[in-house]
Amino acid sequence: MRSLKQIGEFEFIETIATLPRNKKSVIQGIGDDAAVVRFKKNKYLLFTTDMLLEDVHFLRKQRPQDIGHKAIAASISDIAAMGGVPEYALFSMGLPPDLKISFAKGIYQGIKKIARDFDIDIIGGDTNRSKKIIISVFIAGYVERKNLTLRTGAKIGDLIFVTGGLGGSEFGRHLKFTPRVKEARFLVKNYSINSMIDISDGLIQDLGHITKASKVGALIYEANIPLSTKAKSIKNACSQGEDFELLFTLPKKHRQYLMKNWPFKNKPRLSCIGQIVHANAGLKIRDEKGRLKRLKAAGYQHF
Amino acid sequence: MRSLKQIGEFEFIETIATLPRNKKSVIQGIGDDAAVVRFKKNKYLLFTTDMLLEDVHFLRKQRPQDIGHKAIAASISDIAAMGGVPEYALFSMGLPPDLKISFAKGIYQGIKKIARDFDIDIIGGDTNRSKKIIISVFIAGYVERKNLTLRTGAKIGDLIFVTGGLGGSEFGRHLKFTPRVKEARFLVKNYSINSMIDISDGLIQDLGHITKASKVGALIYEANIPLSTKAKSIKNACSQGEDFELLFTLPKKHRQYLMKNWPFKNKPRLSCIGQIVHANAGLKIRDEKGRLKRLKAAGYQHF
Repeated sequence: MRSLKQIGEFEFIETIATLPRNKKSVIQGIGDDAAVVRFKKNKYLLFTTDMLLEDVHFLRKQRPQDIGHKAIAASISDIAAMGGVPEYALFSMGLPPDLKISFAKGIYQGIKKIARDFDIDIIGGDTNRSKKIIISVFIAGYVERKNLTLRTGAKIGDLIFVTGGLGGSEFGRHLKFTPRVKEARFLVKNYSINSMIDISDGLIQDLGHITKASKVGALIYEANIPLSTKAKSIKNACSQGEDFELLFTLPKKHRQYLMKNWPFKNKPRLSCIGQIVHANAGLKIRDEKGRLKRLKAAGYQHF
Repeated sequence: MRSLKQIGEFEFIETIATLPRNKKSVIQGIGDDAAVVRFKKNKYLLFTTDMLLEDVHFLRKQRPQDIGHKAIAASISDIAAMGGVPEYALFSMGLPPDLKISFAKGIYQGIKKIARDFDIDIIGGDTNRSKKIIISVFIAGYVERKNLTLRTGAKIGDLIFVTGGLGGSEFGRHLKFTPRVKEARFLVKNYSINSMIDISDGLIQDLGHITKASKVGALIYEANIPLSTKAKSIKNACSQGEDFELLFTLPKKHRQYLMKNWPFKNKPRLSCIGQIVHANAGLKIRDEKGRLKRLKAAGYQHF
């Protein structure tokens, strides 16, 4: 009898995702950063959920405020990647009975601070006894129908962009990042963003999610990949999870206009890293010496 | 420095719940079975979340299908207790890498079966590596504005009713119960249900949630408390959590009409167990010998 470790996470999620049929009101079920359901005539509801586990996603020696921040920031980033606005949050927590109250309160302080910063209401909570700290977050938000941006819309000829610098998230940034809601809203309101995702599994793997969903290929230029100041190497920047930057594609003709009008300057910067090509070409990278290499989807696997 | 064990769950939840301010669109935040937010003119959205932990809420030796069933049934029951209809579910799972695939699939089979039975779409999922099995469920549903039933509406003179039989849930029923959506919908559509809750912490404790939220007292009659066939004692039936039956109050004058028209006969039966009284009277029970006893809110505490 095989175990989960042997089949890997993605195969397992695909096993599950194939089965349920969806109501007509479901625009997007499992398979994007958030689920999308009908709401009002010109608006959709967005739902996303995430779980943070002690010793997997964070350690007890870290600041509890940072842990709380990360718990909710990852889900906010999912809403941003759909082009949407987060509105409400609910939590299920598992807390060890011997946990210091000050630590538990610190987690909530972190949650509340970022909720306040992003104007999100905390409207539900449930606490349980557990051996290790568990934080499960659910966020509901909305997106205007015309601004909804899925993984499926990348088109041949689109340019591929990424916000910020990649890599080095293991040196603390994965706990303190700012979800790119403002940036995503600027993009979807002003440009024809054909596809978007947030980088949670690593640049190459998340680009692979877009190309697979959109049935296209991609060519990226190693020299154009923006490294964070803490990135150890280009390889690290390509495969490191938890950057939580936006990865998106848009028609080539908008490039000049976007680069000129990007209002955030270098906070975060904007980089054009490549181009969407025909599916037959697969996923390739041109290195700094001009050599073309085929990429495998390398990134964070949960099992 | 005190630990969570020392202050207990309810005090901790109250510490958290006092702080966030809510948007105008929030009808009910933390403090009821589900959160309520504005949706359409005559409809509200309902959100609820629950976490099931191995060795706390279930054991690995139990049938995985039953574990999956329970994970979602508890949240469906929360939606029912608001008078609403569940529509969408999202999951965050923690699964051990060495877990047999057949066991993991069994959990999903259980989830899917009850989702199908209640016409709920599974629209989101997220899996993580963990030491023990963790299932975190989020459910979204709706309720018509006029049918929304909170804990806060109990009125002096209301009669107190409960569906089904209480107690003995530890003998497997807590894994296999049927959430009372049908029954709750019958009630809110046809009667002036002033307050409602589902019994998850135990009859007395959940009645205490209603009386506290409604600023009233309650008198219940021991002889009228319906025991399940597996209940060990009246005490067990009063304090056992996870019955997942409905506890509700309605004006006295509707009693006859309700008892006569209850369409479910004994599946589940309906029992009138007492009356809402003035807050000064507190929470009391009249035992079978006619003696009046003051009750403390005894039920399941998570810490």
